[in-house]
Amino acid sequence: MQNNETKAVILLSGGLDSTTVLALAKQEGYSCHCLSFSYGQRQTVELDKARHNAIQMGAAAHLVLHLDLDKIGGSALTSNIAVPKNRSTEEMDSSIPITYVPGRNTIFLSHAMAWAEVIGSFDIFIGINALDYSGYPDCRPDFLAAFEKTANLGTRAGVTCGKKFTIHAPLMHLTKKEIIISGMELGVDYSSTHSCYDPDREGRACGACDACRLRLKGFAEAGIPDPAPYQKVGDNK
Amino acid sequence: MQNNETKAVILLSGGLDSTTVLALAKQEGYSCHCLSFSYGQRQTVELDKARHNAIQMGAAAHLVLHLDLDKIGGSALTSNIAVPKNRSTEEMDSSIPITYVPGRNTIFLSHAMAWAEVIGSFDIFIGINALDYSGYPDCRPDFLAAFEKTANLGTRAGVTCGKKFTIHAPLMHLTKKEIIISGMELGVDYSSTHSCYDPDREGRACGACDACRLRLKGFAEAGIPDPAPYQKVGDNK
Repeated sequence: MQNNETKAVILLSGGLDSTTVLALAKQEGYSCHCLSFSYGQRQTVELDKARHNAIQMGAAAHLVLHLDLDKIGGSALTSNIAVPKNRSTEEMDSSIPITYVPGRNTIFLSHAMAWAEVIGSFDIFIGINALDYSGYPDCRPDFLAAFEKTANLGTRAGVTCGKKFTIHAPLMHLTKKEIIISGMELGVDYSSTHSCYDPDREGRACGACDACRLRLKGFAEAGIPDPAPYQKVGDNK
Repeated sequence: MQNNETKAVILLSGGLDSTTVLALAKQEGYSCHCLSFSYGQRQTVELDKARHNAIQMGAAAHLVLHLDLDKIGGSALTSNIAVPKNRSTEEMDSSIPITYVPGRNTIFLSHAMAWAEVIGSFDIFIGINALDYSGYPDCRPDFLAAFEKTANLGTRAGVTCGKKFTIHAPLMHLTKKEIIISGMELGVDYSSTHSCYDPDREGRACGACDACRLRLKGFAEAGIPDPAPYQKVGDNK
């Protein structure tokens, strides 16, 4: 248990995973400094959820930074490329999908590291997990270990303070079902989390993209209905 | 020698070092894709120089991305903190100065990696050097090796293409004098490079900040007058 003077930077997307991570870091006693990004993503509704949850869950601070990832492109989330729908678990496992955003977690973690250094924090939390993870390379333990080393070599804090950065990924080895159950135990309100890659104008989830399917499978396995809003079949987008 | 189909991403600040790196990468035959950042830095004049040099030196592309590093703060370059002046070489060597921007090179390299992945490049050039380097931790070989490993673990390209990213730092072990001499041999026009941390409104260098002093020392040791514009003593800023 940390005393509440110990600051942590929490990468908060507004999704199910990172909101659970915020609840876990709070439970551990950290003073939570949440960091979100406006990066040209389709699902900007997730930022509204992140802002709402940071306040509701008692974050000490919430910083939203702009990134020009849409100018780099190369992903269905930041470019005019269709989001794949209704893929099976086997299809999701077989390759890295077009929703992969090149460099995203490295760029997010780099900013978290910079902000941590400025506020005097050595603890960074990220909601990545190696199970039910859509096949993204920047969601794996070896990537995270390499980034942690980079942070400790490339910052004044890492080099001179006698303390080292730790990148916490408390969901790394949990299934979506286990994440949901642990979040429910901590009182996370999943109705105000957003996972869908391709929501409609009202911010309602499509139910068919990889993120929706992993989320719905997790709620089904946990035996809990997903309280987030979904589009009805046949709705116009 | 590369064939000119081989793309490289060149981090181009508009300063002496990165402009020399662009010339070196061109000489090696790369198709040079230059990447610059507007990050709230005092010395925005360097971006004008970067744009000018990318065109003049035949870059295949030039992308300028915005970063919110001024919202993170913690540096004299992005916050309202005075830039140190007239420090001796010994003072520069003794500690990491307040002009250090937390996380800057990690953030720059992360974006370079992302763009490289999208355009099909595995070669990233950065103008950092371990000598005459102002004491920044993110300018050292061990940092660079750690980042290279991170890039190869955290990207689709690094994981699936059978090729690996290489972070080239051709100036790493050169003195400023040696950098200038090699750039002059390649025809670099140093009159259109900007190094000063604290220029006046006309973009003229102060001559007294660490960046100016290292630059002026390099030109003096090379026996060449610095062609860049400097403020006259006594000028109002």
